[in-house]
Amino acid sequence: MKGFAMLEIGKTGWIEKEKPECGVNDAIIKPLALSPCTSDVHTVWEGAIGERHNMILGHEGCGVVVEVGSNVKDFKVGDRVMVAAITPDWNSLEAQGGYPMHSGGMLAGWKFSNFKDGVFAEYFHVNDADGNLAHLPDTISPEEACMLSDMVPTGFHGVELADVQFGDTVLVIGIGPVGLMAVAGANLRGASRILAVGTRPVCIEAAKGYGATDFISYKDGPIDEQVLKLTNGKGVDKIIIAGGGVETFEPAIKCLKPGGNIGNVNYLGEGVYVNIPREEWGVGMGHKQINGGLMPGGRLRLQKLASLIEVGKLDVKPLLTHKFKGFEHVEDALMLMKDKPRDLIKPVVILE
Amino acid sequence: MKGFAMLEIGKTGWIEKEKPECGVNDAIIKPLALSPCTSDVHTVWEGAIGERHNMILGHEGCGVVVEVGSNVKDFKVGDRVMVAAITPDWNSLEAQGGYPMHSGGMLAGWKFSNFKDGVFAEYFHVNDADGNLAHLPDTISPEEACMLSDMVPTGFHGVELADVQFGDTVLVIGIGPVGLMAVAGANLRGASRILAVGTRPVCIEAAKGYGATDFISYKDGPIDEQVLKLTNGKGVDKIIIAGGGVETFEPAIKCLKPGGNIGNVNYLGEGVYVNIPREEWGVGMGHKQINGGLMPGGRLRLQKLASLIEVGKLDVKPLLTHKFKGFEHVEDALMLMKDKPRDLIKPVVILE
Amino acid sequence: MKGFAMLEIGKTGWIEKEKPECGVNDAIIKPLALSPCTSDVHTVWEGAIGERHNMILGHEGCGVVVEVGSNVKDFKVGDRVMVAAITPDWNSLEAQGGYPMHSGGMLAGWKFSNFKDGVFAEYFHVNDADGNLAHLPDTISPEEACMLSDMVPTGFHGVELADVQFGDTVLVIGIGPVGLMAVAGANLRGASRILAVGTRPVCIEAAKGYGATDFISYKDGPIDEQVLKLTNGKGVDKIIIAGGGVETFEPAIKCLKPGGNIGNVNYLGEGVYVNIPREEWGVGMGHKQINGGLMPGGRLRLQKLASLIEVGKLDVKPLLTHKFKGFEHVEDALMLMKDKPRDLIKPVVILE
Amino acid sequence: MKGFAMLEIGKTGWIEKEKPECGVNDAIIKPLALSPCTSDVHTVWEGAIGERHNMILGHEGCGVVVEVGSNVKDFKVGDRVMVAAITPDWNSLEAQGGYPMHSGGMLAGWKFSNFKDGVFAEYFHVNDADGNLAHLPDTISPEEACMLSDMVPTGFHGVELADVQFGDTVLVIGIGPVGLMAVAGANLRGASRILAVGTRPVCIEAAKGYGATDFISYKDGPIDEQVLKLTNGKGVDKIIIAGGGVETFEPAIKCLKPGGNIGNVNYLGEGVYVNIPREEWGVGMGHKQINGGLMPGGRLRLQKLASLIEVGKLDVKPLLTHKFKGFEHVEDALMLMKDKPRDLIKPVVILE
Repeated sequence: MKGFAMLEIGKTGWIEKEKPECGVNDAIIKPLALSPCTSDVHTVWEGAIGERHNMILGHEGCGVVVEVGSNVKDFKVGDRVMVAAITPDWNSLEAQGGYPMHSGGMLAGWKFSNFKDGVFAEYFHVNDADGNLAHLPDTISPEEACMLSDMVPTGFHGVELADVQFGDTVLVIGIGPVGLMAVAGANLRGASRILAVGTRPVCIEAAKGYGATDFISYKDGPIDEQVLKLTNGKGVDKIIIAGGGVETFEPAIKCLKPGGNIGNVNYLGEGVYVNIPREEWGVGMGHKQINGGLMPGGRLRLQKLASLIEVGKLDVKPLLTHKFKGFEHVEDALMLMKDKPRDLIKPVVILE
Repeated sequence: MKGFAMLEIGKTGWIEKEKPECGVNDAIIKPLALSPCTSDVHTVWEGAIGERHNMILGHEGCGVVVEVGSNVKDFKVGDRVMVAAITPDWNSLEAQGGYPMHSGGMLAGWKFSNFKDGVFAEYFHVNDADGNLAHLPDTISPEEACMLSDMVPTGFHGVELADVQFGDTVLVIGIGPVGLMAVAGANLRGASRILAVGTRPVCIEAAKGYGATDFISYKDGPIDEQVLKLTNGKGVDKIIIAGGGVETFEPAIKCLKPGGNIGNVNYLGEGVYVNIPREEWGVGMGHKQINGGLMPGGRLRLQKLASLIEVGKLDVKPLLTHKFKGFEHVEDALMLMKDKPRDLIKPVVILE
Repeated sequence: MKGFAMLEIGKTGWIEKEKPECGVNDAIIKPLALSPCTSDVHTVWEGAIGERHNMILGHEGCGVVVEVGSNVKDFKVGDRVMVAAITPDWNSLEAQGGYPMHSGGMLAGWKFSNFKDGVFAEYFHVNDADGNLAHLPDTISPEEACMLSDMVPTGFHGVELADVQFGDTVLVIGIGPVGLMAVAGANLRGASRILAVGTRPVCIEAAKGYGATDFISYKDGPIDEQVLKLTNGKGVDKIIIAGGGVETFEPAIKCLKPGGNIGNVNYLGEGVYVNIPREEWGVGMGHKQINGGLMPGGRLRLQKLASLIEVGKLDVKPLLTHKFKGFEHVEDALMLMKDKPRDLIKPVVILE
Repeated sequence: MKGFAMLEIGKTGWIEKEKPECGVNDAIIKPLALSPCTSDVHTVWEGAIGERHNMILGHEGCGVVVEVGSNVKDFKVGDRVMVAAITPDWNSLEAQGGYPMHSGGMLAGWKFSNFKDGVFAEYFHVNDADGNLAHLPDTISPEEACMLSDMVPTGFHGVELADVQFGDTVLVIGIGPVGLMAVAGANLRGASRILAVGTRPVCIEAAKGYGATDFISYKDGPIDEQVLKLTNGKGVDKIIIAGGGVETFEPAIKCLKPGGNIGNVNYLGEGVYVNIPREEWGVGMGHKQINGGLMPGGRLRLQKLASLIEVGKLDVKPLLTHKFKGFEHVEDALMLMKDKPRDLIKPVVILE
């Protein structure tokens, strides 16, 4: 079968591979729609997870079941299914302890385009089909379903980590597709003011639609100073970090109220330390909680988030600014993600 | 001063009383708008909290500060303020333990028209002004502010007790004004499907606007059977009870998933026992959590909920179906609440 | 193979069955020690879970692996293992939602001697071996390990449901083996006073060792009155119910503080309703949370609880009042559990 | 009256001041026992909170009420009382939000020897007496009560921040008096293995008594390497930091499991940044939660922690290695704390 792969750090290309084998608990999926992620860009051109050879890229997509293992109960050949970017081993100690995304080791629930071939292929393999697939509802298009693989669950997980409550003032740093879903999630969870940090007009427009009330540009000075000005010196209740780097935590801590939480869902690709400013962190005693976590994957989460689209309470279509038709355009879509033109939020490739 | 009072069980009337005295930590408020509550009806005509003589009624309102104690720091004469129905003693053991509404004893944070004169008077007294008042924002009208005294915080507390999460299917039993705010709160907290139990068209219309997706009438058979039918036999993730009586918990338990929560905010006026069906409660081991609680009061909560109105994410105007002008109409408003005509959600009296 | 079975309601006996088959993810275990449970008594003589024919009894035991499925990674033939009474399907929606004990339906994580043959056999079957077995540490004897199947995790889960905090006054109703583990768990979780309801001297003695500070006998009058007397009318912070019946919730609610939690781990075998007294439940608004739940099972929980025995912080030996040697004594042990002589806490059968 | 004061950074001495005035909600206390804290040393000789002139030191003590304000209900002249180091304004927004220690601003619940005169005086002032005093039980000596001002609640709060659960392996970094109470608290909350980092024999001995199972010395190499070795490469479930500095977080993150929590209760006196190692923090997605917080103060907490001493489940006497008789020895006690001889855990001065 054909797949679009990372050949080595800095190099991509089309390769031929054997169709993956299906274990007794697993399934083989033929994609209906696919979407590249900024992580794929990090993986290839920054070597963020280290060297990989001829590894098929991609972890966002949905498809049709073409094969299932003998132990699989709830899915059969021909089923249209959603798949999350994170596909945990649900019986692992970590999953039993509430952290399926770290099943088998920190971040090891992330398998596609990390430990095994990803979804940019004619066929891809899903471990534990009953645990990690979900039926694609008729009312959700394949391209929308792609947003449920990573963008929606990651953005929403930031909101959960930040523990947004009714009437909270929330700061969302970064309004790429994940940040936009963090805005939408904060809004859906009862935030009142949502301050969004970002500059691209297409993202600002989308963020307004998702519930952002105030906008901050890093070009206008330090984020924390702008936040404190907008909040009469009080700061914000909660912060979701969906962009920036290790240095972003400094302004975040500086404008967070005591008792507030930071939920980071941004992949920190560079830097030795995440720098927490000692004094504004209350000399260690300010109750400014810092957390960061990979999205949970799995079937239940897919179903729950999909249900928000089904009833019309979440609309992911504003994310899909660029659409391609045909598997061969996976490469174009990825390059778009790499080059990030000003009018791009997220590209998607439709295969059907 | 004049006040509209419960003279004894079953009897109301206008009385003359001394203007209340202001303690060092307290404030005296002259009302700007007032609203009667079904609880006032329970109190007078059902004697729900026992006999009371010449007690001024009412616990929903907002006003202008006319006097403050010498210890009060953040409020001064002339300030326009919101007041919650529950005005806790914030230094009590119960408040320190996270339950201000029970400060000084179960439910004892509820003082207006319970342990002391209520707000249906020319002047009313607020204990701990710094803790229990909040400045009324310019963008919120006095009549809207009345909904922040009890309807919004009570409905939203039901959502907190039920612990609604992203994508949950939620059942709201009862869609009077509190139930409507429970629908709005569940929606604001990320519920996908919201099944609402109610029959009056004016309420159903409002519920749709607040995010309800399915409607159930008790006239069409047992609630639980209808819920199970609508959910393919799976039941709901969470339930908020905002109407009915002790018997309402039986169908609730029957259609709640294991691991689900019931949040009750309904005043249970009659009956010896709340009946929990043993078998459907998992013979004691089904993890169907049952909780019920009085709303928290206080300044922080008022400010946070008001901020949702300020940014336009919560609109309480659809609740205000009947408006009166002039203090003397408090009596008419209460009688309306007692008689509950089919087109009523909530009456409000504007004094300014 | 031989097994000791429920032949029908009210009747037990030894039967011959085929050795169970081992699925790809499963294991077959030969027992090292076994222990009967009061649940077995309910199942047989009260027909609590309905009719069963020739179903092998028992869900407490440990053993040696004699066969493993091809997918099993962490266990091999010859390994000495602990097994929990509850063996969830870890990839189920319920487990993904945090309720593995209800995987596949309410209480359906409980399989042994419920939906399939139990452990009172020459060999028994464990589904999902990697998820549901744990290696038996050298420092824990097989008879101690039996207490980790159900008594310890069930009692401790009551403590978790009640959410015991530092310095809480806790009431434990029932001090059979599960109640004793609830006492031990409450003590290990920082309770100060632990009031225990029970009458048998052997249990009272053990409860003292586990941290109970006050004792109450139902023979001395209503439990709630005794509790209120012992606490100067204040009541207790938290309650664990590990005995009694549906009527036990009434005194519990009556002596629980607002903001307190009830954690029930008692199998409620009879009665139509669990009766919650309306008035003392704060007319629905007292924040007296009621929860009840089956223990979580699985490997992580087994390992964590075993570690408390390994370091000497939990001693289950005081539970083991009656010991038998030889598989054939399973019947005697069960009859002892049925007849409950005054000096019995828990019998165990050692097979090695 | 006389008081022992910080004259300026680096200088202490006895001064004369007016006896403090008692507000309507407040109380004046005459000390029964006093204890210096390492914080006093930081304040004076490191200038950790900036310059202060003639500020009476001390925030650990208990005493007798000699005056109460007219609004105080539960305390009267002659009552023997405990006092916490942190005395919040309970009606503040922060306290209403669950963070009383930050009432009025980050860390501003800490008033003694910070914003106002401390307890090393013939008389000291307590704001909000009903909220911040607790009656001293007969069974607790004044010197034990001093440990309830700061050492016990601070150490135990670390355990709460780390969210220790049954069977957790916990690392406690630093075993001075606060660290020892963190060990005791982790043990009381159900930890199995407790790895303690410290070197002084007197502390190690005490830590063993409080439940530590393994000891690590920073002299034997990096803490994280020793922890990983002791745990077969798995790391620990939770970490409490009660010693070290900003650099201590690096080894902590390195040996913490994904899904684990760090609870810091150590005053970080120096350094620009708390350095969180990016990679071992899971490149921002490892769910290694970092929190740090000042202890909550107030009456409820005092009562709850005292109850653990009353029933004999917590013994603070091993902390009290050095005792003085007479107010004038406050100076000696503080100098001891400054010089920290090898056999010191905590000095106390008894005044009665």
